[in-house]
Amino acid sequence: MARSSSGESVLTRVVRIFESFGPDSPVLTVSEISRRARLPLATVSRMVDEMTRHGLLARDERRRVRIGTRMWELAERASPMLRLRETAVPFMGDLQSVVGHSTQLGVLDGTEVLFVERFTAPGSVVNLTRIAGRMPLNASSSGLVLLAHAPADLRERVVRGPLPAFTDATIVDERTLRATLADVRARGFAFCPGHVHPDATGIAVPVRASGQVVAALGLVVPNDDQAWSLIRPLQLTGLALSRALSTHR
Amino acid sequence: MARSSSGESVLTRVVRIFESFGPDSPVLTVSEISRRARLPLATVSRMVDEMTRHGLLARDERRRVRIGTRMWELAERASPMLRLRETAVPFMGDLQSVVGHSTQLGVLDGTEVLFVERFTAPGSVVNLTRIAGRMPLNASSSGLVLLAHAPADLRERVVRGPLPAFTDATIVDERTLRATLADVRARGFAFCPGHVHPDATGIAVPVRASGQVVAALGLVVPNDDQAWSLIRPLQLTGLALSRALSTHR
Repeated sequence: MARSSSGESVLTRVVRIFESFGPDSPVLTVSEISRRARLPLATVSRMVDEMTRHGLLARDERRRVRIGTRMWELAERASPMLRLRETAVPFMGDLQSVVGHSTQLGVLDGTEVLFVERFTAPGSVVNLTRIAGRMPLNASSSGLVLLAHAPADLRERVVRGPLPAFTDATIVDERTLRATLADVRARGFAFCPGHVHPDATGIAVPVRASGQVVAALGLVVPNDDQAWSLIRPLQLTGLALSRALSTHR
Repeated sequence: MARSSSGESVLTRVVRIFESFGPDSPVLTVSEISRRARLPLATVSRMVDEMTRHGLLARDERRRVRIGTRMWELAERASPMLRLRETAVPFMGDLQSVVGHSTQLGVLDGTEVLFVERFTAPGSVVNLTRIAGRMPLNASSSGLVLLAHAPADLRERVVRGPLPAFTDATIVDERTLRATLADVRARGFAFCPGHVHPDATGIAVPVRASGQVVAALGLVVPNDDQAWSLIRPLQLTGLALSRALSTHR
């Protein structure tokens, strides 16, 4: 792979340019990219031009830069998430219309949960998840479900910490976490009142394809006495989605 | 930008490797990528290794290659489509649950419609669209809506052809196309019985954000006497979605 004088490959620089964009910064100037990616302005300027010609980036009328439609298309059309998301979306819609709260679908990626789809309704309780956003495995109900069913070596590594906290209720103690994971496996769901935000309860269930856990389906509901009553609807939706994913098409 | 001995930039080769993947070929061997991207095996092998280290590609247990989760995440989290899709999905779910047919959301990209979201139900009529798939503007109802509201110079360019045909009903005549576009603007929808497939009728309406057409919302229904009755539900969903997109949040 061709390298710059600093010994860094072109690809490394391309990835650093992509990484400067995020949900809170979808549009950036060349100088902002240069600062965030810690790359010289001239390098960024030249690379942004070439990436724009390929449609990986695009410029708006003020010459500010954003992720290109072509980049989205290349990533999406052959995405390993496409079938999972396409199958899950109608079930998530049903769930949201019946229970009236936010619902999201997360997959295990590295030592985090990556949210690949989310439905949110106006007036829903605070929900810190985002599409293509991440959360630590110990903190969220979806994370606990994915961790409970993760390979033993990954589970051991995560359980030993560090375990980041969002509230006083987040599980940050190794022993409690181990007990909770056993509980999630035995009961088939994770129930997390106030673990991410004091006002919200996260509930999550495993989603299986041909027996293997491939995702976690979650609800974020108000942290009150009613939250428990939503476990069964969520479990039924998780089972229905698992059945649809296990059908060969 | 660093160039190989053939004078081709690293980025060009990266894009050609990405382009070898598609909805029908989400998993490829290194030799298949080499053949599809028309790049030497040794080059592909070296680049796939580096792209895998960055998470842009991933390998399965048989060392076959697919698009990486990280690539999806980078493209999605700052995607210009994210707010549009997130807002549209609940409305599309409502529409599908009420009318029981496939629904999709398309945006104008170059001289084609790019579908960014789709809901499909088991047993729906044949629907050739796909998430991250494309269609010519003259052929599909969503394309006609986007073309009717496109900038005049783009519209002129497309109208003059070539105009690809899918069936005998596809609009391939310049004069008919011009009249149809005026009609779509006047009536507020495109109605296309058999234009893409003899058994299916496409119907589409514009989706506006603060007055500007940003997408087309479409239904694919059986090509029969009942199809007309679905125009009004689709129009109402399009208006509701436009209202949601025009609310500042």
